[in-house]
Amino acid sequence: MAHDDGVRHRYALRTSRLEAFSDGVFAIAITLLVLEISVPPGSDDLLAAVLDQWPSYLAYVVSFATVGALWIAHTAMTEFLDHADAWFLRLNLLLLLVVSFVPFPTGLLAESVGDEGASSVAATVYGLTLLAAALVISSLWRYAVRAALVRSDAPAGEVRAMTRRLTPGLAGYVVMIAVGLVLPVVSIVGYLVIAVGYLLPLGSLRRRSSGAGAP
Amino acid sequence: MAHDDGVRHRYALRTSRLEAFSDGVFAIAITLLVLEISVPPGSDDLLAAVLDQWPSYLAYVVSFATVGALWIAHTAMTEFLDHADAWFLRLNLLLLLVVSFVPFPTGLLAESVGDEGASSVAATVYGLTLLAAALVISSLWRYAVRAALVRSDAPAGEVRAMTRRLTPGLAGYVVMIAVGLVLPVVSIVGYLVIAVGYLLPLGSLRRRSSGAGAP
Amino acid sequence: MAHDDGVRHRYALRTSRLEAFSDGVFAIAITLLVLEISVPPGSDDLLAAVLDQWPSYLAYVVSFATVGALWIAHTAMTEFLDHADAWFLRLNLLLLLVVSFVPFPTGLLAESVGDEGASSVAATVYGLTLLAAALVISSLWRYAVRAALVRSDAPAGEVRAMTRRLTPGLAGYVVMIAVGLVLPVVSIVGYLVIAVGYLLPLGSLRRRSSGAGAP
Amino acid sequence: MAHDDGVRHRYALRTSRLEAFSDGVFAIAITLLVLEISVPPGSDDLLAAVLDQWPSYLAYVVSFATVGALWIAHTAMTEFLDHADAWFLRLNLLLLLVVSFVPFPTGLLAESVGDEGASSVAATVYGLTLLAAALVISSLWRYAVRAALVRSDAPAGEVRAMTRRLTPGLAGYVVMIAVGLVLPVVSIVGYLVIAVGYLLPLGSLRRRSSGAGAP
Repeated sequence: MAHDDGVRHRYALRTSRLEAFSDGVFAIAITLLVLEISVPPGSDDLLAAVLDQWPSYLAYVVSFATVGALWIAHTAMTEFLDHADAWFLRLNLLLLLVVSFVPFPTGLLAESVGDEGASSVAATVYGLTLLAAALVISSLWRYAVRAALVRSDAPAGEVRAMTRRLTPGLAGYVVMIAVGLVLPVVSIVGYLVIAVGYLLPLGSLRRRSSGAGAP
Repeated sequence: MAHDDGVRHRYALRTSRLEAFSDGVFAIAITLLVLEISVPPGSDDLLAAVLDQWPSYLAYVVSFATVGALWIAHTAMTEFLDHADAWFLRLNLLLLLVVSFVPFPTGLLAESVGDEGASSVAATVYGLTLLAAALVISSLWRYAVRAALVRSDAPAGEVRAMTRRLTPGLAGYVVMIAVGLVLPVVSIVGYLVIAVGYLLPLGSLRRRSSGAGAP
Repeated sequence: MAHDDGVRHRYALRTSRLEAFSDGVFAIAITLLVLEISVPPGSDDLLAAVLDQWPSYLAYVVSFATVGALWIAHTAMTEFLDHADAWFLRLNLLLLLVVSFVPFPTGLLAESVGDEGASSVAATVYGLTLLAAALVISSLWRYAVRAALVRSDAPAGEVRAMTRRLTPGLAGYVVMIAVGLVLPVVSIVGYLVIAVGYLLPLGSLRRRSSGAGAP
Repeated sequence: MAHDDGVRHRYALRTSRLEAFSDGVFAIAITLLVLEISVPPGSDDLLAAVLDQWPSYLAYVVSFATVGALWIAHTAMTEFLDHADAWFLRLNLLLLLVVSFVPFPTGLLAESVGDEGASSVAATVYGLTLLAAALVISSLWRYAVRAALVRSDAPAGEVRAMTRRLTPGLAGYVVMIAVGLVLPVVSIVGYLVIAVGYLLPLGSLRRRSSGAGAP
């Protein structure tokens, strides 16, 4: 594909709109999360009412960290790409479908904590959504590697590191979904740990990659 | 128009803001869809309540697929453009008016399924909105071709393929609107099939187009 | 200012983020308008309920056309700019404050039509908001001209045409605000006419401008 | 880092997506503020009801000015950057978390004014949020300076001016949070003064910086 400059140029262009559209959806989904937080109107003691909403704040932070981690992974991924193709575009749309769904289970979670049965259900729906996101972003990257969309000058070690980084989360989500059936709050904290875990090691990947040109 | 470099540059610029603004509206409309999904507060059995919302999820997926297909068609279309003109800008605004209206009939649909009469009305309003979107995007492309906005190096075969691709959906929407008067759920599934149909063959168009430079 | 390349480059960059941020706010404000449309839940006859919402649809179209016209004027304006300065950035923020306020009076209008007294109030608040938007965008352009932010190669005739185009709307809004005190629906239609008026003649300005390089 | 062109190019790219994503979040957060304004339905006298909402309008303006000032500071900051690194990306995400939280305390404020006790609580939550935003953006800049992310050709005087500009607000917020415990409305006006203060002097910084190339 790289032998035709006109085509390359068009693909480069398409990647830029795919990025702009994806950035838009990530940014909106992450900002809509705040709409799930609200204090019931007409409470006598606003301080108590605000503090009572702690599950909302926890859910906000966990979802923000998760969507933020997905966005960073998406950025890292598309930076490795030479171009996109038709299937990548559609798989990416599937990822965005899951990402923009996140505010719904976040709201469920915020409303249900305190009620034992309801919070198990909410934590399960939440966990399944995060698992779906992790599965789709992982498939997106594997597809990009298999379909040779990755730039030929990308160091093979980093491509493998990226693949490895996207895998453990899957197992973590499965475990936490099981935990959430019994101990919903523990699973939410677990989702936060996974998100922070995604956020941190990708950092070290980056720092290593930034030194790739050094001897 | 192409004989004046200053003018070309200004038109190129305008196309880039038209794309940025359009991407923004598409991204927001597609992400606002999730706000139409909600579980009635205070339900005893959250699992049952969450499952009861299946029409909301179906409506979410259908609208997401439709807006996603429109966005991909819009991207493909603007990639063929050499520049935009004043009328293209306004027709594009009309398209965005219809696209950002989509969350409203999506919400109607989500709320009405279960009630026979209401869901016929909702399915009709929904179908008319999608038909309007298909009509406007098709007109936008025909206008671009007639007003010679398309790049002179765009292969005539692909331009015709693009025109063909935008037509069958119109008939499909008309048929489904009629079906929806009697069998609303069938029509919703029909809208999903049309959206997925748009998503897939455009893919094959792309793959062919990417090989255009090959011998 | 143009004698220092580093500075020019930085100003050019800043204009691009100003445009991206403004495009974002315009796109979100125009897409949030749909959230003001809703059918009261639990109505027996959904068809009647949907038709009853005609003031919402009218308000949606008028606001969409107005924000769309403002966006097109903003695009046209920034294309004339060589660079922005600190005050332009702040005046632009003031414009965005008014633009993102538009969904509120749009909602008032949608809810109040039918009630004579309320709709006069709503039409007045709506008209004052549109007048404020027209005043600020007009000031923004006059400031840009006076502060010599306009590109030196911009034809003086077009700069004057742009100034002229931004003036009549002001008088129109003042007249319609007065009319709205007595005949609110007439004033809403008047606001639609003004918005469409902005949309159309700017078009002819563009077409003329696009031929500027011809002999 | 600057010795490797491929790496520099990749970092430049990443900064552009960081900016696009940040612009998106700022634009959405600032535009969602309007959703916190609403008139209770079914009021007899709409004019009185609209005027009664003055705390909402004040909160809207204060939050808009604050988020606008943060956006301008963010733009000024990233213009000084040569590249971003992994930690800058994560600290930036933390800033966005606080920024997109702003609509929540804005809504609290809008609803509580009139009720003495509630408005003290709301003003405190509001002040703490703004303080957090100021702390994080200040840390972001200090980190960028310490980690040598700033362009080597950035005048040292301007870098110091930027650091100075981000400091006084912190003290102002602490004072206003204390004031808000007793006189909530005074503290809100204080937050407006701080935001406008941020908006104006940065302007003079800019104007000075634009003349940097002059003798």
